[in-house]
Amino acid sequence: MKEYYLKKAEENLPKINITKICPDLDPVILNSGDTFVIDLGTHYVGYFSFKMWYAERYIDAPGRMVVRFCEVKEEIDDDYSDYKGFLSPSWLQEEIINIDFPGEYKMPRRYAARYIKISVINATKALSLSNFAFEAVSSADMNTLKPAEIIDPEFAKIDKVAVNTLKNCMQRVFEDGPKRDRRLWIGDLRLEALANYYTFNNSDIVKRCLYLFAASDRNEKGMIVSHLYEKPIFVSGDWYLSDYSLLYACSLCDYYNHTGDEETFRDLYSVAKSAIDSAENNKDKNGLVDGDAFIDWCPDLRKRTAYEGVYLYTLDLWCETLEKLGYEEVSAYRNILSNDRKNAVNLLFDKEKNAFINDIDDRQYSVHSAVWMVLGGVVTDEKAKEILLSALNSEDSVKPKTPYMHHYTVDALIKLGLIDEAEQYIRNIWGGMVDIGADTFFEIYVPGVPDFSPYGDRKINSMCHAWSCTPAYFIRKYGLGK
Amino acid sequence: MKEYYLKKAEENLPKINITKICPDLDPVILNSGDTFVIDLGTHYVGYFSFKMWYAERYIDAPGRMVVRFCEVKEEIDDDYSDYKGFLSPSWLQEEIINIDFPGEYKMPRRYAARYIKISVINATKALSLSNFAFEAVSSADMNTLKPAEIIDPEFAKIDKVAVNTLKNCMQRVFEDGPKRDRRLWIGDLRLEALANYYTFNNSDIVKRCLYLFAASDRNEKGMIVSHLYEKPIFVSGDWYLSDYSLLYACSLCDYYNHTGDEETFRDLYSVAKSAIDSAENNKDKNGLVDGDAFIDWCPDLRKRTAYEGVYLYTLDLWCETLEKLGYEEVSAYRNILSNDRKNAVNLLFDKEKNAFINDIDDRQYSVHSAVWMVLGGVVTDEKAKEILLSALNSEDSVKPKTPYMHHYTVDALIKLGLIDEAEQYIRNIWGGMVDIGADTFFEIYVPGVPDFSPYGDRKINSMCHAWSCTPAYFIRKYGLGK
Repeated sequence: MKEYYLKKAEENLPKINITKICPDLDPVILNSGDTFVIDLGTHYVGYFSFKMWYAERYIDAPGRMVVRFCEVKEEIDDDYSDYKGFLSPSWLQEEIINIDFPGEYKMPRRYAARYIKISVINATKALSLSNFAFEAVSSADMNTLKPAEIIDPEFAKIDKVAVNTLKNCMQRVFEDGPKRDRRLWIGDLRLEALANYYTFNNSDIVKRCLYLFAASDRNEKGMIVSHLYEKPIFVSGDWYLSDYSLLYACSLCDYYNHTGDEETFRDLYSVAKSAIDSAENNKDKNGLVDGDAFIDWCPDLRKRTAYEGVYLYTLDLWCETLEKLGYEEVSAYRNILSNDRKNAVNLLFDKEKNAFINDIDDRQYSVHSAVWMVLGGVVTDEKAKEILLSALNSEDSVKPKTPYMHHYTVDALIKLGLIDEAEQYIRNIWGGMVDIGADTFFEIYVPGVPDFSPYGDRKINSMCHAWSCTPAYFIRKYGLGK
Repeated sequence: MKEYYLKKAEENLPKINITKICPDLDPVILNSGDTFVIDLGTHYVGYFSFKMWYAERYIDAPGRMVVRFCEVKEEIDDDYSDYKGFLSPSWLQEEIINIDFPGEYKMPRRYAARYIKISVINATKALSLSNFAFEAVSSADMNTLKPAEIIDPEFAKIDKVAVNTLKNCMQRVFEDGPKRDRRLWIGDLRLEALANYYTFNNSDIVKRCLYLFAASDRNEKGMIVSHLYEKPIFVSGDWYLSDYSLLYACSLCDYYNHTGDEETFRDLYSVAKSAIDSAENNKDKNGLVDGDAFIDWCPDLRKRTAYEGVYLYTLDLWCETLEKLGYEEVSAYRNILSNDRKNAVNLLFDKEKNAFINDIDDRQYSVHSAVWMVLGGVVTDEKAKEILLSALNSEDSVKPKTPYMHHYTVDALIKLGLIDEAEQYIRNIWGGMVDIGADTFFEIYVPGVPDFSPYGDRKINSMCHAWSCTPAYFIRKYGLGK
């Protein structure tokens, strides 16, 4: 089957569109020690080239320069030598290049950048740099972008930045971040696919990603691997996250619900079923699903309640889709869903606090638990509103850190009809990024804590990150900002 | 005329031969901090490629490594961060590379190396490196190398290293050094051409170089520029050395004497004549030629006497060649030569010291002056032998520093029939380099002073240098070591 799945994935490899960005600049004359910054106008992903020539006298030694690609302005003056993060510094987008002869120079690697900083380290004679060009690449075609009527100017801006984020992450697959971590992750795939249906609506790339995960290795429990690599060869990842495994099933349901492509759903049904059944088969003694879930970059957060919510949310979407397609298995899943919702409220709702706690023996309290209990249908209506708003407004509750978790928070607000609150939440998070000049939405954004990083150093953060692109989905699907 | 000369130069662009060197090595597994050295077996010039793969788990971040190309063993452990020389450190053959995906990686620049040191700086997982290959390039074709009967094993070794030196400097032109300073210089051109006639005998490349200098800019005195660039476009140099200007005429005479190509000689006659006449027209009040000569890397050396010798030597070769070809101008040049030799001995020979002094008012005394007065025919026979040997053996005399000047010293010894002394000199200088493991002959070699550098740091010295290749000429032309 693996070969069949990979063949289907290859058949759906999207076309890469190339747009050449040529900043309108006169040639710059640089000597040793001089620095020059090119501003592409917004964030792009692609390949940089320029011409190095001699200014007056022919250069009699190679020109050595440092070329740094910056997603945001702050990176221009960062000192990379004091990098303290625990991810590999090889993700920092900087090269030392030596050019032997005057001429056109095309840098071979792909970068994610708005700003390009060139620092001449060694030049025996003045260099003349010109013909700066950036070949931006994306499988998103701006000509196919669906028009959207967004009256509120802030939301129009947010939508634009969200679309740019999605575009720059759409390459051969839905990348996680085009600067760092170019893997395909299920959690990001799902959010990008949702935004994609309402913007570029390129269903090939979604199909390709679904088939790639079908080709990946299930673990001994039947879980779907949380990430994979597809270049230069297909390699299954080696990390299993229990919520991501389930979100594969959600992604497949979303795909069918948006495309009506029944053939693909039936083709991949057994893969999604494996994810759901593996959660079902790995419950603890209390009947709650048990596994290592991602949920959010929130090191102190206990995640049992949130994961239970992901499971119930998935089961709900799964049943709805199976029903549409007439699968007999639906009634068995419906029973489980109904029982498990009751079990969850019994075990995880703390009446005294009037809140969902993070685990059965935990006093911790978080937006995450509230959001996922709402999305999982464990609470509904006024009760749900009260719980969710109280978690959001409480000073004691653990709050979402990543735009990934912010997405599901907005989703829960909208599900409950709290449109004003959802809009305000989007303004606060994504509008906050726009206010500080974002051309694309960041991997991490904690209002008021600009240097927050889950990796020990802001410099390694990805400033164009797939999971942050969903305001375009909310704004366009629900007509926000109208 | 410039366009015509350039056209002729292009017509004689030599073919570049490619030889793929594949060291017989198993894949090496490297983690961050690990270093690996590849030994190509001898010195080559060319392009390096290898395969980077993952050892067990797929790499989830770019592999960052430092790749250093070393001409000699000492460079492997050199610390480039403390480089103190005054030439551009961009000549130091080291790159920091980032490889995004497993696969074949071909480094785009050309290097001169026997040893290749790979140091992994950042790798999140173990890397497997394999398929190391070096595409050696040269316009010298080893299949056309003339066989030579050299019985003395030391001379056989010296010849082999000299041939390798020449081969690695023979590219699109006779390069000065394939590591550093890839310009075409007249002084090096002449010596490489001489060695080439007795080894690969590729006359195209000599012709090309002669035409390139013909296309270059003469200064207001009519001198020929001492160096030029030919890639990516032809650019005349901007440094005029009076001895190099004259050696263009010598190179043209050599070319005719070895090839019998009268057409080319006549085509370039006016260029060579311009060099000779410009020396003739720029004499000082004493009738000695006046100009900035190179002679040797010898900062304290006064060079008037040596330069006068270069002039008389050139005039001698010029007259001999014009005579063969029936040029009428020869008698006028003969007169000048005869008068100037007498003038030189009167002004520059110190009877008390029984030596040529370095300038008319100088007490300094050097091998350089003696060598060039001998080569210029100012002294002959027993008198010449006595003067030359005494300069060589004296503790007070300034001694040659570069193999370039060593060449002319051997030439003078051979001219005087001092074959044993010439052989001993070759054993001492070039044999000395062979003894310390040279695969190619160095730019600079001062016996007992391995760190000597004219540039403030040994690390920038070129260890395969055109002007050091002439033992092959002497050994083969004069049957040394038989």
